[in-house]
Order: sequence, then C-alpha cells, then structure tokens
Amino acid sequence: METDHDRGIRSVAIVGLGLIGGSLARDLATRGVRVHGWDADAECLRAVVEGGAVHHPLAGDLRGVDQADAVVLAVPVLAAADVLRTLAPRLDGVRLITDAGSTKGSIVARAEELGFGDRFVGSHPLAGDHRSGWDASRPGLFDGGRVFLCPAPSATDEAMRLARELWTMVGGRPEVVDVDEHDRHLAWISHLPQLVSSTLGRVLAGQGIARGELGPGGRDVTRLAGSSPEMWADIATDNAGALIPALEAMEAELRALRDTLASGDRDALARRFADARAWHGE
Amino acid sequence: METDHDRGIRSVAIVGLGLIGGSLARDLATRGVRVHGWDADAECLRAVVEGGAVHHPLAGDLRGVDQADAVVLAVPVLAAADVLRTLAPRLDGVRLITDAGSTKGSIVARAEELGFGDRFVGSHPLAGDHRSGWDASRPGLFDGGRVFLCPAPSATDEAMRLARELWTMVGGRPEVVDVDEHDRHLAWISHLPQLVSSTLGRVLAGQGIARGELGPGGRDVTRLAGSSPEMWADIATDNAGALIPALEAMEAELRALRDTLASGDRDALARRFADARAWHGE
Repeated sequence: METDHDRGIRSVAIVGLGLIGGSLARDLATRGVRVHGWDADAECLRAVVEGGAVHHPLAGDLRGVDQADAVVLAVPVLAAADVLRTLAPRLDGVRLITDAGSTKGSIVARAEELGFGDRFVGSHPLAGDHRSGWDASRPGLFDGGRVFLCPAPSATDEAMRLARELWTMVGGRPEVVDVDEHDRHLAWISHLPQLVSSTLGRVLAGQGIARGELGPGGRDVTRLAGSSPEMWADIATDNAGALIPALEAMEAELRALRDTLASGDRDALARRFADARAWHGE
Repeated sequence: METDHDRGIRSVAIVGLGLIGGSLARDLATRGVRVHGWDADAECLRAVVEGGAVHHPLAGDLRGVDQADAVVLAVPVLAAADVLRTLAPRLDGVRLITDAGSTKGSIVARAEELGFGDRFVGSHPLAGDHRSGWDASRPGLFDGGRVFLCPAPSATDEAMRLARELWTMVGGRPEVVDVDEHDRHLAWISHLPQLVSSTLGRVLAGQGIARGELGPGGRDVTRLAGSSPEMWADIATDNAGALIPALEAMEAELRALRDTLASGDRDALARRFADARAWHGE
C-alpha cells in the first residue's frame, strides 16, 4: 500500500503567475501535475485557466489551497511575507511550502515564526531575464538552471525531498545552501549586476542618450535596466545588508580604474582589462 | 569618357584583418571589390588569401598599397598612428584613407599633420562585440549598423563621397559627426559600458566568483569583460579626457543608489529603478 511518505507531487498551488510562477505552471501542467493558481490580475488568471496551464483558479483569500501537495509563492519578495500570513491558517494538508524569490533570509524566518517551518524550504531558481509577467513566461525556463534550496531550520527530510522533486521535475538542478550564505552570494552574482545595469541606464538617461544609440555590447550591459522596478525594490531592500558592501566594492574599483586612466599608464590599464578578460574566460 | 571623379571604389587595401578589417574584407570581396590586405599575423594572412577574402597580400612595409582606391586602417587605435606614418610616403594614387577605430580625434589630427588630410575621413562602424581577431570576423557585420564619419578639416567632397560609398556598399548607415563631438559621445554610448562591464568582472573575480555562476542577466552585463585588453587600453587612453567625467558620473550614481538603499526608503529605490526601466523602453 502506498504511504504518504512515498507519494510524489501530484498537485501544486502557485500563487502569482508572472515570469517564474507562469513558467512553472506551464511545465507542471505539461507533466500531468494538477495546477491550482492565483494571480492579482483576474483577467490574466482567467486567460491562463482557459489556456490550460492552471486547472483550478484560487480566490484572493486562497481558500482551497490545501487541496495541493505543494504551495509555491511566486510573488515579489516583500509581498511574499504577507501572502504567508494569509496562507498560514489554510495549510493543513500541504506537505511542502516554498517560494521562488531572490532573497531567502526574511521569508525563511517568517515561515518558521508562523509555525510551519517543518514544511518550508525556500527556493530560488536562477532563471529569467529582465522581462516579467505571464506574457514573458515560457515552457522550459528552468531547464538545466540552478535552483538554490534553503530549508527552514525545522524543515523535515520529507519537505526537502519534495522540494528537490518539484524543481527536478521541471529540469532544474537543486543545490542546498545556507540561508545567510545564499543572500550574501546572491548580492554578488545577481543583485549587483542588476543594480549596475540599472545605474548605467540612469547615467545614460541623464546624458540624453537613448538606448537605441548603443551598439550591441552596450545594449547587453544595459539589458537588465528593463527589469521590474517593484520586484527589484523589494529584493534590494530585503538584501540591503549584503548589497551595500557589494556596491562599495564596485565604486572603489571604478575609482581605481579612473585613477589609472588619469595617470596615463596605458599598460596598467591593459593589465586591468586583461584581469577582467581572464575572469570572463574567452 | 569616365573621369576620375565618377569612378567608384574598385579596390581597397585593408591594414589589419581582425574582427572589423576581416569582416570588411569578406563583404568587399563578395561584392567584386579587389582587396589588398595585411595582417601582423602572417599565418592568418596566408589563410585569408587562400580563403579568397584578400586577393593581394601586402608586405609589412605596405609597398603596393597605392594600387588601391581606398586604404582602411583596422588596427588598434594607438597603433594606427604609427601605421599612418608608414603609409604616408606610399599614398600617391590613393583617393580615400580611412580607419575603423573607436576614437577619432588623434588619428584625424595625425592625418592632417602628415599632409593627406584632404583624402582622410575617419570612420567608426558601431559594430562587433567582445570578440576579436579574424576568427570572429563574419559577413554582414556592418549591415544596418551606424557608421560615424569624421572628415579631416581639409577633407574634400570627393573623399567624403568615397567614404559614404565604402560603408554603404557593406550595408552600413553613415552619419557625419564632428570629431570632438564623436569622441565625447562615444565615451558615453560605448566606452563607459565597456569599462563598467570590465570593472564588474574584476569585482566578481575579487570575490572568487566564476562567470558560470551568474544567471543569464548577469552574463549579459559582464559580456564585454571578455573584450580585447590591448584594444581597449588604447581606446581608453586615447579618450581619457572624455571618459573620466563619464566614470565620475557612474560612481556618483552608484553612491546615490547606495545612500537610498541605506536609508531604507523602498519607494525611492523603486523610483530609481523605474527611471532606468523607462529609459530602457520595455
């Protein structure tokens, strides 16, 4: 007889059907998982249900979410904390609660406080680009990509197993990392590049330069300037402690470059660029 | 009877067969233009001649360059000044001398000094990416791309006509700009993005982070870190006067972002990102 422990994930509730939640819904529906879904945009939700990526729409109070084996929060980082409170009294039958946000410290702490840390494993799929919303979602978004898993302190092995199963099902490569280490690491590998790209966009805007005037390289560097301002205001605020030193390091390195340039030492300049190229690996 | 004035470009000498020179050779050869070519790498030159993109290899002293209607210097910016000196006594029958470098002030001044400003129109095709060398060259590189033209003070209408013809032949869109205005403008639209990308690469290298750890967005922002160190040391040195204020503006904007982040004012942060997104235009 099948026990609860052996059972895989047969149904998933996804709260927020943007780039990440929408792409996850598409992939899970294709793999025969029953998908429950909610989105703040009622029109969007209706269209997604009609398209078949969500089988059961949820109301704003998230009633019925406990019909799912797993719940995934795919809303902006600061909003996720509020959604967790709404969810808290409705999680009785749910075996895994996770999210998809770019910072993990505050949401893992909140899940633990709210008393369901045993079933909470924070997730962060390193996927997507500067676009956002359902229209940007697509099948295969997570295929071959890294997914960081940050279990709550009291998370059970069963919750961890289900979190791995969820992301592996859509082609992701789960890696377990400590919560604080995750947020520090992400400040460098993801949040700093985002902030640098946005900042360069503001600098060029200040000069009256349109993005279309840039060459292909400059357009690459400024691509992330098109990212969702609301999503990134949340992430940066939530991870300010780790991001401030990263910004300081970038400022210091730009200043050192400017000093080298002012000194007229062409070969020292070439060495700086050579370091960057060696890092780039091409 | 055909006069010299009516004659189009039938033969071009290209000095330097890297990404820009090599791509130009490929496109001109395809269009029936006789291509004379030189490259510092003798092996490369031999292979290019065998492949048919160059019909007549030139020796290092550039003897025979005067067989061409037009000469294009496609070597790094600071090297171009030396090549101009080598060329000076050999330009008798040549009707257009141009280049393809990312800065224009110093080379235009040098051509004027050397006495052939009447036939010199500096060119800057806004094409290419972080790669360099013949292996990165390809047909169609200039197709639909901007090409800045900066005539020397004494350049004739005939030289301007030929410069337009040369770049139009390979699909480029010529725009005439003042030399100083070009270099100031390029500091913002091209050189600053390059330096920001390289600098971010150095910062991440300093944290022991490999480029492969970044997500797709971070890889875009750091793509230009892979550009040729020698080429960019030349460009940055040559355009230091315009680049230093651009770097200062970037540092100031990062500092302002960091202050906003430290203040905890999430909405002010969202407004900064919204400005960047509005500029990005998506």
